[in-house]
Order: sequence, then C-alpha cells, then structure tokens
Amino acid sequence: MRKQKYNIGILGSTGAVGREMIGILYSRRFAVGEIRAFSSDRSAGTEIPFGRDTVISRTVTDGAFDGLDIVLGAASSDVARRYADEIVGSGAVFIDNSSAFRARDDVPLIIPEINADDTKAHHGIISNPNCSTAITLTAVAPLHMISPIVSMTVTTFQAVSGAGVAGIDQLENELSGNEVNRPAFPYRIAHNVIPCIGSVLPDGYTDEEMKMQYEGGKILHAPSLTVSCTCVRVPVVRCHSVSVCVRTERPITADEAYSAIAAAHGCITANDTANGIYPMPLTAHERDSVYVGRIRRDLTDYNALDLFICGDQLRKGAALNAVQIAEILTK
Amino acid sequence: MRKQKYNIGILGSTGAVGREMIGILYSRRFAVGEIRAFSSDRSAGTEIPFGRDTVISRTVTDGAFDGLDIVLGAASSDVARRYADEIVGSGAVFIDNSSAFRARDDVPLIIPEINADDTKAHHGIISNPNCSTAITLTAVAPLHMISPIVSMTVTTFQAVSGAGVAGIDQLENELSGNEVNRPAFPYRIAHNVIPCIGSVLPDGYTDEEMKMQYEGGKILHAPSLTVSCTCVRVPVVRCHSVSVCVRTERPITADEAYSAIAAAHGCITANDTANGIYPMPLTAHERDSVYVGRIRRDLTDYNALDLFICGDQLRKGAALNAVQIAEILTK
Repeated sequence: MRKQKYNIGILGSTGAVGREMIGILYSRRFAVGEIRAFSSDRSAGTEIPFGRDTVISRTVTDGAFDGLDIVLGAASSDVARRYADEIVGSGAVFIDNSSAFRARDDVPLIIPEINADDTKAHHGIISNPNCSTAITLTAVAPLHMISPIVSMTVTTFQAVSGAGVAGIDQLENELSGNEVNRPAFPYRIAHNVIPCIGSVLPDGYTDEEMKMQYEGGKILHAPSLTVSCTCVRVPVVRCHSVSVCVRTERPITADEAYSAIAAAHGCITANDTANGIYPMPLTAHERDSVYVGRIRRDLTDYNALDLFICGDQLRKGAALNAVQIAEILTK
Repeated sequence: MRKQKYNIGILGSTGAVGREMIGILYSRRFAVGEIRAFSSDRSAGTEIPFGRDTVISRTVTDGAFDGLDIVLGAASSDVARRYADEIVGSGAVFIDNSSAFRARDDVPLIIPEINADDTKAHHGIISNPNCSTAITLTAVAPLHMISPIVSMTVTTFQAVSGAGVAGIDQLENELSGNEVNRPAFPYRIAHNVIPCIGSVLPDGYTDEEMKMQYEGGKILHAPSLTVSCTCVRVPVVRCHSVSVCVRTERPITADEAYSAIAAAHGCITANDTANGIYPMPLTAHERDSVYVGRIRRDLTDYNALDLFICGDQLRKGAALNAVQIAEILTK
C-alpha cells in the first residue's frame, strides 16, 4: 500500500482506545485522507477531537467501509467478528485491537519493535496484542535477542482505563462519593485492588492471564514459552505496571540487560533506584515508550532477571501500537 | 509470666500501629492492669481510645518502664534501640515491631501460628516480623508443612498506612486536592504506584525486599530459603496484598494447598475465583486473618503454586501479631 493519503476507519471510535487512536493519527502526522469514526447507535453523533478539528461518529451502515484503506478496530471481539469480513471484503486492511483473531494462524500478531516483518503474511487482518502483553514484551524482547526467554512469572498492576471509560467513571465516582450507576468492576476499586481480570478458566487462570503466554509465544516466535501471570486491577486511572521475573536460556547480567533495553526502540530505562528513578504510572502517563527499571538478578534463579515495567496501556498497549502497524503498511 | 493482670507499655503509641495495639489489647480482652502509652515530645498528651476509656500518651522519662511486664514496640528502629536495654533492665519483655533486633540470634522472631515455641528462647526481646513477611508467611507456612518451601517470587501491593499516619494523610490530601505538607513518599501516590520501598542496597534490592528472605528463613527454620521480592506501594489506605509463586521440594496440588490453608490458624481461604471470591483489601480490612486465594499450579514450574494473599498489615502484619506474642507469654 503506497499512496499520498490514506482513508482510515475507526471501529469503536468513542471509547477510550478509539479516541486515543484518532489523537495519535493526528499527533504522528499520519497521512490521513478521510477519517470515518464508527460507533454504536447509542454513541453516534459524538464529537471526537482530531487536532483542532473534530470527527463526528456514525453507525455502521451498508457500504460503510467502501473506499477505506485501513480500519483500526477499538471495539469488542463481538463487534470485530461481526464486521471483519465486510471490512476485508471492501479492500481495507483491518488492524484489530480485540482478541478475536489474535490466535489465528493466518492473522499476524504484531508489536512493531519486535516482529514488524510478520505483517507481510497478512490476509486482510492484523491483530494488536493485549495491553499488558504489548507493554511487557516490548521491555523483555531485547533480552530475548541476547538469550531466548524460557519462561516468565508476571504480576500486573492494571489501570481502570483498561476497562474503558466505564472503569474511569467508576473510580472517579467512588473517590468523590458519587453513586456508580454502571460499575465496570464487580467490587469497589477505590482504595482496593481486584486480583481477577477476564473470565476464569478451569485451571484457575483467567483468559487475560493466559494472553501473556499465548500471545508472547507467537510474537517472540517462541512456541515453548511459558508464562505464569497474575492480573490485578489497581486504582490508577491510566498506565499499566508489570512486575516480571524473566528466565533465559543462559544467564544475562543486569548490566547487559540494561544496555540492551536502553538501546531498544520503544523502551526508556528508568533504572537508578537509589536516586529515585524507577518506572511509575506518573512518568509513563501519555508517553509512547515503555519504561523499564528495577533491573536486577533474581535471587531464586541465576538464569533470571527481575524487572519493573510501566507503560501507557492506551498508547503502547493499544492505540499507538495499532497506528504503528498502520505506519508499517504504508511505508 | 503468669499473673492476674499485666502492666503494658506501648512505645510509639500515637502512630498507626501503636493505636492499633491499644485497640487490639482491648478487643481481645487482654488482662491489662495498667497501660502506659509512650510517645515523642511532640505527640505527648494525645488521647488514644481504649474501649470506652482513653489513654493519654506521655514521653519516656527516667524509670518510665518500672513495674511494666511487657512493652510493645511500635516505634522506629532508632527508638527501639535507644530504649531496649532500659526496658529489659526494668524486667519487662520487649516485643518490638521494628526491624532493629530481628536478625539477632538471641532474639526470637515470631509468627505465633508458625513458630510460637521459639519464644521460649528469648532474653528479654522478641521481634515481630515485617508486615508483608508476616502476612505472606502466615499464608504459605501450611504448604511448608506439606513439603519444604525452596524459594518464592513475590510482588507486593503495600498500603499507604504501612508508612504510618503520614502515608494516609498524603494519599487523602492528594485525592482531595489539598496541599501535602510532609509527604511520606517521594512521589505522588494518588493514581500512581511506587515500586520502591525502603533503602536501596548495592545489588538493586531494597532492605524491605530482603526482609522476606531473611525473616522468612528464620521463622520457617529454613536457612536456605531464597526469596526474590519486588515491593510496590499502591494507593490503598489499608491492607497489603501479595502475589506469590511458592516453589516446594515436591509438587503440591492446588487442592492439597487449599485444604492445608483452609485448616490453618490465621488463614481464611477466598478461593472461588469463578464466583468472584478472592482476597482483596476490601475484605481483609480490619480483619485478624490473612485471606488466601487464586490458588493454582504455576505454569512455569510443576513444583510451584501461585497464590494471592491479602491481610490487614496494621493487624496481622504488626499490632495483632505483637499482641498474640504477648498472649503466648502470659499463657
């Protein structure tokens, strides 16, 4: 695909990720011709900022995707499945942020800093990884280049905006003592943490927790990778944090790891703990890069390193990564 | 020690832990004769609730400990070191919550549910473990009885009250938009997480993180135990949560682990994830027991289990544990 301007559709444009996609298309000066912002009936007519202009969202009607080059998907898996054939049939490439197609062999799952070349094998759909997966893998991929990653033990600190605008509303209403009409979480999240995200599988893990292993194996081309993950919601508006123990085939020193991560695209090291420099939501807020720090040798396994990672999950974990994939297609 | 009534001193009585100790002495109907509440000059004269009565805090003057049977320490390590000799010299047993004496061979380090018998070897001082250590070990000790624990990978979610009243004030002032005069943390904690608690050691770990290994080995009588820990402050007022991967000599099934933990003193299982039952600060708040859930086989190591644990760090992590030690001494 090589044009002067590209016509872009956004599916689920009025949600937290959809709005972010439109903002990022503008701020990265993507060569946008037309933008078509799609939404549910309920949200149709919403004005979404695009630089100094606004885009007005509309419902998906017959022929809605005609003439589009790329559709960025920021809707649910159900909505993604409903429209995928029509999008691809209309000739657009569908870059989808839902989990609907991530496991499919004919659908590349892409983090541009890691496996951009995999986009070449697409058949009309390219998937964007899960938010925590994108943030974590961007940080650990430089280690995988030094020595293959065998396994990871992961605990996440996931922001409420990971559950969309409803998650932000719940936290803000709870903190200000207002009634919460449509809670995004099964319990209060203000002054609480909720150690369960996604649906529970028979072995006691959630589908959210398994994404790190399944998606990680596919993106890193490491099918035998195992990841044991505990996903926890925390009362933070934006930015996911991740505590990771990464085991590699051969030991990597903390210094080697630091140098590799510091040199990697998409990563910023924040690794001077003694001087108060470590990754935090406060620092990663609205940033494109993933922050990596607390880099140290694990004390239980000489072949492992412990890291703390923080990234803006609406950006690298979702909207930015999708726009970066679109940029690959147009280069 | 066997008396009708015991005279109790509280060192650091006006802080979060000291107040909790006094409340717990009352609620557990400890056979209290006299209570002497000590504090700094600045806080002297503070009224602290003791049931329907109040106790008024005073500074430590000459002979202040005379006639006391037990002194509960809720002050800093410096204060504990300053008065320890005088307390022991006066004939009282010093049950200290600071880290000052925990590593000393002649000082038992006690979690009553695990190693109550170790109290017998005291020479006037008994130490209370670190808050996260107490909560985590109470939950994993039942597994250690099935098969010795070899190592643990731990990530904590520590409440602001772990840094005392100043920590609570900082969070509340930040959330209500007020000025924070004496911040307890180096960065904003509202809508943030801070992945650094304690002083940083040369290998990149903090002293807070190393406590789990050093204190864990002593309490479990497992000197070769290794623990790799990442301690993180979260914007929660009260209750620490802990995500743990526990590796044992032989594999333990999730069912075996559940049964052992459910039968253990000091633990309540909250382990029905599919039905929304898991440990949270919301549930553990002002409870004596440690809540344990998300019990499942680790996916990276067949000899490991993953758990999520939550406990009220002012209670089991500090004040309750100290009063429980006092109860052992008086039985």
